[in-house]
Amino acid sequence: MANVYDVAYDLEKALRNSEDFQALKNSYDEVNNNPQTKELFGKFRDIQVTLQQKQMSGQEVTQEEVEAAQQLFTEVQQNETISKLMAAEQRMSTIINDLNRVITKPLEELYGPMTQENEPQQ
Amino acid sequence: MANVYDVAYDLEKALRNSEDFQALKNSYDEVNNNPQTKELFGKFRDIQVTLQQKQMSGQEVTQEEVEAAQQLFTEVQQNETISKLMAAEQRMSTIINDLNRVITKPLEELYGPMTQENEPQQ
Repeated sequence: MANVYDVAYDLEKALRNSEDFQALKNSYDEVNNNPQTKELFGKFRDIQVTLQQKQMSGQEVTQEEVEAAQQLFTEVQQNETISKLMAAEQRMSTIINDLNRVITKPLEELYGPMTQENEPQQ
Repeated sequence: MANVYDVAYDLEKALRNSEDFQALKNSYDEVNNNPQTKELFGKFRDIQVTLQQKQMSGQEVTQEEVEAAQQLFTEVQQNETISKLMAAEQRMSTIINDLNRVITKPLEELYGPMTQENEPQQ
């Protein structure tokens, strides 16, 4: 009988060698090797995190913050290198969700389908 | 090169056939096949969920609720069948966390270690 940890290491290796992970890594390096692109992407991530934290803790998000986020989102979308990275991140997120769903299927069969609110947060 | 989904299915199979999953399944069935034990465990789960939801939404938890939860916790601990199930669930939770950590290692190497608050919720 295969040991779960051994198979998990095989899965780690398969993910690491997959085209999708290599594409993500290349896009990530491309964004971070260009100081201007890196700064723009960093700003965009920071404002996303700030707004999300404010919303989760029930703090008011100001009109200025919304506009700043929209402005940055437009800039980020127009940047081909960042767009490519964001698309690669989205694909990787889908794959990780799929893998989690496959692996936890035995538990889902035992306990019944997980409701939305019990799912791990993204 | 191994396809990530194929390896994920291998991992699902390994988990399903593992001693830990089989022990969990047996304990789960044992609790649910005894109407009294099933009811006690159901009550305990319900009050856990209720208290957690109240705390997360900032609602006040009453002294009566805390005492009811403590009383149920004592009863549950004294029930050998339920104790066995809870121990098996704890082991499975550790395994699932370990598997997630192994599988997402390539991403962690790319993005840096996840902070506590980015980790999936239990």
